[in-house]
Amino acid sequence: MNKIHTHSYRLAADHTNAQRELPPALLVRQVIECATEHADILGCGFERLQTDGLAWVLSRLAFQMNRYPGIFEDYTISTWIENYNRHFSQRNFEFRTAAGEILGYARTIWVAIDLKTRRPGNIEDFGRLADANDHSRPCPIDPPAKLRPVANPDSIRTYTFRVSDIDFNRHVTSARYVELAINTLSLSDFDANILHRFDIDYKLESHFDNLATIGAATSGPVTDVTISVADRPVCLARLQLSPR
Amino acid sequence: MNKIHTHSYRLAADHTNAQRELPPALLVRQVIECATEHADILGCGFERLQTDGLAWVLSRLAFQMNRYPGIFEDYTISTWIENYNRHFSQRNFEFRTAAGEILGYARTIWVAIDLKTRRPGNIEDFGRLADANDHSRPCPIDPPAKLRPVANPDSIRTYTFRVSDIDFNRHVTSARYVELAINTLSLSDFDANILHRFDIDYKLESHFDNLATIGAATSGPVTDVTISVADRPVCLARLQLSPR
Repeated sequence: MNKIHTHSYRLAADHTNAQRELPPALLVRQVIECATEHADILGCGFERLQTDGLAWVLSRLAFQMNRYPGIFEDYTISTWIENYNRHFSQRNFEFRTAAGEILGYARTIWVAIDLKTRRPGNIEDFGRLADANDHSRPCPIDPPAKLRPVANPDSIRTYTFRVSDIDFNRHVTSARYVELAINTLSLSDFDANILHRFDIDYKLESHFDNLATIGAATSGPVTDVTISVADRPVCLARLQLSPR
Repeated sequence: MNKIHTHSYRLAADHTNAQRELPPALLVRQVIECATEHADILGCGFERLQTDGLAWVLSRLAFQMNRYPGIFEDYTISTWIENYNRHFSQRNFEFRTAAGEILGYARTIWVAIDLKTRRPGNIEDFGRLADANDHSRPCPIDPPAKLRPVANPDSIRTYTFRVSDIDFNRHVTSARYVELAINTLSLSDFDANILHRFDIDYKLESHFDNLATIGAATSGPVTDVTISVADRPVCLARLQLSPR
């Protein structure tokens, strides 16, 4: 039983952002990649769920980084399941350099949705998922925050979801919401600060051609973001900066 | 001398688009990844150029696909240099399945820009680049088309470049223009057709907070796209669809 799955990465120049570091949206893509690989290894991946008409969907995520992998740096992402019940699975991640330095952690909550009803499905017969739990391994960051919609945004932007935003589940892809949240801040914010902690709560699916309204409110180092479609919040996020 | 560099990929579910195929922008990212890896192997990569104050920038690209890698499919991208002079390098690519089926080809033209002046630099002392030329290997697609700005667009959209669009060269990343071009069409266009051929010509750099105007004109299976900033074309593209 591979209770822990580790993927090794090297951060190529063309994968870095303006600060020559791992971009937060790529971090989330790699977290999803590692989760997907581990689920495949455990026999509860995309192919297996599909036979039951289910698909894993990321429901909540938080990551907290001491620093980000830099250009040309070798690092690993290790993932393990902390807990699961028949409706969701809690999966954690540790980011570490090749030299063993801990860069940060992530926590995620996944739901298996029924592809027809788009409602949570039932994953209770995945015995192997239960066997793979590793409660003992530490993940010393707070769980994904319970966020509320921004009441009084200081800034509002709009964005219409297009072809490149849609994934194999035919809804807007998780990483794109991360980008929309990040994009409420300015390049100079990330030059002067690191995104120390990021929380995101995926509430509802969005689809091709939906017009999203992105409201943001900043208070000191914390920016709260609400992405809404047709006046309903589809995604809430919180960014916490810390000076470099 | 590694005249040909090959990278093996497996198309994970979370990397596919709504048609459960390799998305065109990811295809371009992988082309850039393979080019970057090969340049590193040849000793003319990002790290080496940086010591001369230069950086490789993609100037033009064309790809032509019989079909795209599908979900869970294993495929390779092979790259080789067809030609180079002191101002630019022509690098080709072949896409092939693990079973040997040729999926398509790409042609690219790269310029080494001087990071201070942002003008083309001089790469003539890269003897190893010359040795690595492989004129004999076929790349049976036309070179990147010479495109003209769209005179009478049928559709005009705007987009302001934000943090997630900016790369390590602190300009808008090549793949983002591909997405903006793709996004002039609808999800149903890609459900009914494949993007058989794509040409893109990067004319000028765009930067954070620039407001882009995206004009598109469709005539039969061909859509021409012009992305402009402050009334100057920064990027021209052509999409050619073919029914599935």
